[in-house]
Order: sequence, then structure tokens, then C-alpha cells
Amino acid sequence: MSDLLHLPLRDYLQSRREEVDQTLARWLPPVAGRLATIRDAMRYSLLAGGKRLRPVLALTAAEAVSPGDQEAAGLAMPAACAIEMIHTYSLIHDDLPAMDNDSMRRGKPTLHVVYGEGIAILAGDGLLAEAFALLAREPDDEGRPGIAARKLAAIRRIAEAAGAAGMVGGQAIDLEAAGHTVGPDALDADGLKDMHTRKTGALIRASTVAGAIMAGAPASRVAAVDRYASLLGLAFQIVDDVLDVEGEGQDLGKTAGKDAAAGKPTYPSFFGLTASKRMAQEAADAAVAALAETQLDRSRLAEIARWVVSRTS
Amino acid sequence: MSDLLHLPLRDYLQSRREEVDQTLARWLPPVAGRLATIRDAMRYSLLAGGKRLRPVLALTAAEAVSPGDQEAAGLAMPAACAIEMIHTYSLIHDDLPAMDNDSMRRGKPTLHVVYGEGIAILAGDGLLAEAFALLAREPDDEGRPGIAARKLAAIRRIAEAAGAAGMVGGQAIDLEAAGHTVGPDALDADGLKDMHTRKTGALIRASTVAGAIMAGAPASRVAAVDRYASLLGLAFQIVDDVLDVEGEGQDLGKTAGKDAAAGKPTYPSFFGLTASKRMAQEAADAAVAALAETQLDRSRLAEIARWVVSRTS
Repeated sequence: MSDLLHLPLRDYLQSRREEVDQTLARWLPPVAGRLATIRDAMRYSLLAGGKRLRPVLALTAAEAVSPGDQEAAGLAMPAACAIEMIHTYSLIHDDLPAMDNDSMRRGKPTLHVVYGEGIAILAGDGLLAEAFALLAREPDDEGRPGIAARKLAAIRRIAEAAGAAGMVGGQAIDLEAAGHTVGPDALDADGLKDMHTRKTGALIRASTVAGAIMAGAPASRVAAVDRYASLLGLAFQIVDDVLDVEGEGQDLGKTAGKDAAAGKPTYPSFFGLTASKRMAQEAADAAVAALAETQLDRSRLAEIARWVVSRTS
Repeated sequence: MSDLLHLPLRDYLQSRREEVDQTLARWLPPVAGRLATIRDAMRYSLLAGGKRLRPVLALTAAEAVSPGDQEAAGLAMPAACAIEMIHTYSLIHDDLPAMDNDSMRRGKPTLHVVYGEGIAILAGDGLLAEAFALLAREPDDEGRPGIAARKLAAIRRIAEAAGAAGMVGGQAIDLEAAGHTVGPDALDADGLKDMHTRKTGALIRASTVAGAIMAGAPASRVAAVDRYASLLGLAFQIVDDVLDVEGEGQDLGKTAGKDAAAGKPTYPSFFGLTASKRMAQEAADAAVAALAETQLDRSRLAEIARWVVSRTS
């Protein structure tokens, strides 16, 4: 994987995405027969492409904390893939009629449109469970002292990010606030930030941190990477809201203008477009500054922070 | 916990249930504020009582494989509680309108009836994620050599049991077969057994095996306990189908006669009531015989196998 070191960012991201896609396809459970439907449903959503931001962050963080270690990204690959499975499960469930009721995702009809709601719920459940099976299984412990402890630390961090105080909690806040654009149940700007910190931020942080943990980073570097990822997640979310206003549906692979139409609170709806873009840039700059604390500011992680605020889809 | 040793089975089960209920309440994430709704929804279903068969099996297996070890059940308690969280999540999702569309469970209205479908889906998701956070966190590794490896083995086993080849796969088979009582998509008797082996059997096996693993059982005993639990799960399911025909709704805490009304295949529908009861008894006897292979046939596990086929709710 070291030959990726000198690629321009765009090619680096593309190359990482391809590795992740190939590995995901290999690590899904090889079920067949009566299980063909649930297998196909899980694959439909998981292998639909997407930016693969979370797994790329895990792999990049692993490399950044142990430069020159050929094994680092390989040790982080199971966490990278498991997190993409968890991210995909969350998209499947978020898109359900009882939630956001979305019909397009990653440029294709959503899973429940194709397979029905029951199978869509189960495919999400299956991806969440299989993510933890993968994290417990890979990488192999044999002859690697200390790997078991790293795996447990990564599992704990990822599970907490997916749980009630993380992604699930953020989605519950979002769901409760839906339709309450004014009144006591409406989200204020603090509530909006809290919701996104949990719904999107927690898993972005967990990805980056899990990559650093799997590569054996010392606690001080894990903490710096964690601060970086927290600010990166904020920048990412603000840009997402801005793109929902300014972007084109065909670039996004999902319905544009959806948040505004649903009366959902967004960064632009609270702060306006210009201030929102400035806030995203400030968060990205602060993310790079967090990296500088442990001499990681010249790593790919810094490039990714700059890319996140310049993206158009 | 050793003072439970000489209790009659009924009191032993009651005592274990109470321990599990208390521990479950303590180990849910202590979230509040904007997260109060999702917290309350998770608690509503998780703390609604129930037989707690799976956690009891984990604790009993841990004790059985290490008689006299005061710590054994304590080491298995996190796995016991995590599995009850996973079992509860599966009930919440199975009861949804897109699945079995059930309105009563454990003697109370189902979660989606009270909180709506969106929060019910999320509460299930949250319980699944929190189960793995608990498994990674507890018991504490400090000063316990080998515990990390046990925890990873238990997580892997439990996650695979919950995943696409286990519980989720079984539910997908059930869902696909619904409404197909005749024709090429109808389940035959082999299909029925395969469905139950995955949907109910896998997690019952994983509970028992995880208890034995956490207590440090050697591989031969883990294998015997696994065979026992596989047969116990079969007996349990057949009795469940029989009770759906013969039982009273108020004893069951859920709607009786539901399977027949839905035209679902069951053991009695294929084999009749008398043969089904005999098959359940034979499976329970074989479960006890599997225990005898490693001198565990005088343990509580054997008593539980006999209780499973004599229960009326």
C-alpha cells in the first residue's frame, strides 16, 4: 500500500475507495440458498459506491500515525470496512418511510423501494451485526501481541459511536424535531450541532480513532487524531447542508433541496450560506491545527480536511 | 452467587432473572436531555420482564463449566445482558408493521404502538449497538490474563449468531415465506427447521457458549455445551409452536393462535400436536445426553432442558 504515498489526493482517494470496495465484497458472509435474498439486499446497499469517507479516514489515520509501517493500513482495514457497513446500515434505516422516507441514495432507488421495508430493516440489522463479527475476527491475533487489546478498544469506540449517545441518539433527535420548525420542540442552533455531532460526527470520529488505535498509536496521538476528526466531522456536515442548497441532485446521488423542503433546520437556515461556508472553512483549519500538535499536519489527514470543504458532491 | 446452588429450579430461575433485570437497568447508557426519548424507548422494551432464558443460560453455563468458582457467573454477566439486549432488539423489529405486525409483547403494547415506528426501529438499533459496547467494555481486563481473548471469542460468536447466517437470516426466511403456505415459495419441514435454527436457535446457542467461553471452559466443554444448546433451542421452539396452539394469551404475554391465523408453518402444522410434543421431549433428552459427554449432566443445564419442555408459557 506504500506506493500510494506520492499520489495526488484525488488518485489516492480513488485508490483507497477501490481497495475498500474489493475488501467489503470479500468480507460479507458467504451465505446462499434460502439466505440469497438477505445477502443480495445487504450487497445492494453496501456495494453501491459512495465516497467511502469513513473507511478512507481509518486507513489514512493508521498510515499517518505510523509512517513507513507497511502493515499499518492493513491492520486498520477490518475497522475501515466494519465502519462502512455500519454507515450503510444507518443510511438504509434513515431512508425508511418511518424515518426520512427517501427514495434515492447513492444514485439508485433506496433498498426498501427495491426489496420492501421488512427486508430493508433486516439488511440494516444484518450489516450492523456483521460489522462486529468482522471486528472481532480480523485482523488475526496469531503472533501479534497486543492486537487483542487494540481490537477491543476499537470495538468499544465504534459501538459507542453507533449507540444511544451516538448515531442512534442523533437520529432520534432528528426524528423528534422533524416537523417542529417553530415552538418548544424545534431545534435551536445548539440543538442542531448536538444532533449532527451524534448523528454524523460520532462515526467519523470513531473511524479515524479506530484506524489510529489499530496501528498502535500512543494515547497522545489518538487524542490529537480524535480532535481532528471531531472538527472534520463538523466541517463535513456544514458542507453537506450547503450542498443540499447549492448542489445538483445528479452530483449528490440523492435528492437535493430535500432538507429545505422538509422544513429541517440546517446550518444555512440558521446562519445563511456565506457564514456557513466560513464556519466550515474554520472547522477544517482547526482540524489541521489539531494535527499539528503531534506533528501530523503534513500527513494526508490534513489534505483530506482541505478536500472536505472544497468538495461539490 | 454461590448461595443459589441449592435452590429449587423455580427459585433459582427467579433469582437469576432478578439479577439480570437489575444489571440490565444499570448497564444501559446513562443518557438524558435530548436523548430521553430514545433512552425511555430502549428501557420500555428491555425492562419489560420476560423469561430471560438466554441470559440465564449464559450464567448457568458459566457456573456449570467451573463449579465452585465464585467469579464464573460474574464473568459471564456482561455477555448475559448483552444477549438479552440483542434478543429484545430482535423482538422490537420483528413486531414492526413491516414484519409480524404484532401489537402485544411481554404483556404490554409493542414499542412501535407506544413510540411510533421510527423510534422503535432506532431503539432496536440502539440496543444492538449497545450490546457490543458492553461486551467490549465488561468485564474489566485489568489483572485478568486471557480475558481479552475470551471477550473477542464471545463477541465473534454472538455477532455471527445475530447476523446474516443467524437471527437476521432466519427472520428474512420467515418474512419471505409469509403468505406462501403452498407453492414453490412455501417452507417445507426442512425449511421450517432451518428457519428456526437461525432465527431462535443461533442466539440460544451463542448465549450458552458465550457463558462457557467467558468462564474459561476448555474447547471440548465448549463444544459439548454448544451441542446441548443447539438441541435445547430446537426443543424450545417446538414447545413455542405447541403453546401458540394450546396456550392462553394472558399466560404467554403475547397474542396466542397468531401463527395459525397468519397461515405460518409450525411444527404442529407439519407433524400434529402429539408428534410435536414427542419431538420436543426427544430433543431435550438428547440435550442432556450431550452434557453427559463432559460430565455436565448433573448440572443446572440439565434441569433447564427438562423445564423447557414442561413450561406452559
